[in-house]
Amino acid sequence: MAGEFALIERLLGQQLEPGKPGATASEAPIESDVLLGPGDDCALIAPPAPGLAWAISTDMLVEGTHFLSTDEPTSLGWKTLAVNLSDLAAMGACPRYATLGMAIQAADKDTGWIDRFFLGFKQCAETFGVQLIGGDTTRGPRNFCVTVFGTVHPAQALRRSGAQAGDDIWISGTPGMAALGLQHKLQTLHLPDALQESASHALHRPQPRVALGLALTEQALAHSCLDVSDGLLQDLGHITAASGLSATIMGAALPGAPIGIAEAVWQDCLLGGGDDYELLFTAPPSARPALQALSQQLDVPLHRIGCMQAHNNVGSIQLIDQHQQPVDVARIRGGFDHFA
Amino acid sequence: MAGEFALIERLLGQQLEPGKPGATASEAPIESDVLLGPGDDCALIAPPAPGLAWAISTDMLVEGTHFLSTDEPTSLGWKTLAVNLSDLAAMGACPRYATLGMAIQAADKDTGWIDRFFLGFKQCAETFGVQLIGGDTTRGPRNFCVTVFGTVHPAQALRRSGAQAGDDIWISGTPGMAALGLQHKLQTLHLPDALQESASHALHRPQPRVALGLALTEQALAHSCLDVSDGLLQDLGHITAASGLSATIMGAALPGAPIGIAEAVWQDCLLGGGDDYELLFTAPPSARPALQALSQQLDVPLHRIGCMQAHNNVGSIQLIDQHQQPVDVARIRGGFDHFA
Repeated sequence: MAGEFALIERLLGQQLEPGKPGATASEAPIESDVLLGPGDDCALIAPPAPGLAWAISTDMLVEGTHFLSTDEPTSLGWKTLAVNLSDLAAMGACPRYATLGMAIQAADKDTGWIDRFFLGFKQCAETFGVQLIGGDTTRGPRNFCVTVFGTVHPAQALRRSGAQAGDDIWISGTPGMAALGLQHKLQTLHLPDALQESASHALHRPQPRVALGLALTEQALAHSCLDVSDGLLQDLGHITAASGLSATIMGAALPGAPIGIAEAVWQDCLLGGGDDYELLFTAPPSARPALQALSQQLDVPLHRIGCMQAHNNVGSIQLIDQHQQPVDVARIRGGFDHFA
Repeated sequence: MAGEFALIERLLGQQLEPGKPGATASEAPIESDVLLGPGDDCALIAPPAPGLAWAISTDMLVEGTHFLSTDEPTSLGWKTLAVNLSDLAAMGACPRYATLGMAIQAADKDTGWIDRFFLGFKQCAETFGVQLIGGDTTRGPRNFCVTVFGTVHPAQALRRSGAQAGDDIWISGTPGMAALGLQHKLQTLHLPDALQESASHALHRPQPRVALGLALTEQALAHSCLDVSDGLLQDLGHITAASGLSATIMGAALPGAPIGIAEAVWQDCLLGGGDDYELLFTAPPSARPALQALSQQLDVPLHRIGCMQAHNNVGSIQLIDQHQQPVDVARIRGGFDHFA
């Protein structure tokens, strides 16, 4: 962790004291196991409580690929951590720590850009009880790489491979809103005034479903789970492939198009858009009452959109429209590929 | 860990099987605690053995700042992991796991550039018994961000703040060689033929001093330690500041200039150059015989170059030349600043 100490220390100094998390996603008080924080060659972290494992994930956000130079930096700071926490949520893990590697422009220090970025990062960290334990700052085209650490009972972790034939398929929230927000931002679609704020919020301030992931784990409600970052159909494909099953989506059960949005546009956004960071999970039909109660308790919409099947080709996904007719989804299922 | 699954899985598939590390830096066999490897939202890692803590560090390498587009990618892959392992070595930690976030050009897949990069990364991982547990691949200006995880007994970890008045100051190897290699590469200095290979090797294939760091920890020989990434004087300044001491360097004890290199050039490289990733540590005079034996055992040169003092201004560093005269080092001590 070499480099520009003054900047790193200034940024790190803005965060919460060790052992003093803000509002945490879990109700249990969290003690800090940070034996040595930022400023040395490494941070030192005590092992988690007996029976717990570390869940670890890394995501990199690049200017021009994941965000624009004109994006508001406070929201970008929030999103940089939030998309990583979404991976922990999808595993049912409790967020604990993060490291932040960042390449920024020399001017970002002087203009306050990096301070605004870090304000958003800190807001997200405090909201979810995450402590920044280290980082690296360097000069270069803007790039932010976060590694997050959470704790989970490994036997309870929500894997992609655990789906069972007969499972319901559930999706949280309303995926597609971030894709609408992106199209509006790129001026390829004009959104009605009433939609602009919520779509922009979905795109720039995604809410990682940490509380939902924890509840699914603790109540053992789900057989498999992931977060939708590349598009609902593509990500569902990962569950079907990892679980050796196929899936059927009932179009009539999907969240409907917002007022003023054409059905075809909405279908593309809902099934093919990424960046919403909602949880896609499968659960046995016996879990329906508990999931409906959980939806109310957490104030998170949960849509039961289809089911997993053992017959048919492994990995295949069928979309059935409201007239019980199959819809061709190959085009949408391609999902988002940075190298396409 | 979203994104381009085919590429990630191809790269990850090239590494060793879980639980089958290659030549390890420690003699003890290492069992894998990876409960879930790459491919899901998170990796799952079991806690370390009782009494051990995790040492965690992050470094980001950016094209144009840390390396050039024309650099040989296999060596760059090695260096990308090696500079992170150097942080673990400086803590006395045993390397275990790494995550790799990378932004690359679309063409890097087709030209084989990324395969050569990953070959070098894998060579370094196998040499030091490191398992890659996850990553993220995206399109963008080339940028590699590694987070490494090692294990260490926290009470034995080599911190910057532990130096004591009267400690000897030691440096491993010959810092300055990488700076010579960089000057040659940038054509600001022409090296004698006999020096070119060793200087280029120091710059492009740094050897993290993992075995030395482990031995210093296990034999409790050092009071403080860090790796020299920003320049010997600047990094020694971190030890003096963290420990509340000052330091004196004896010029006559420093490694001499290689044949054909002017003294003034060498002094700049040795005291101000970074990128060598040698260990700078302090130890009580009583440890001298053990350190000399360790140097022979590991075949790592160890130079005793000065001592730590309680008097004088905290954080000050004095360089005494062979005539016992102080040398002005303010210019050199500035070290390397990516934002300068």
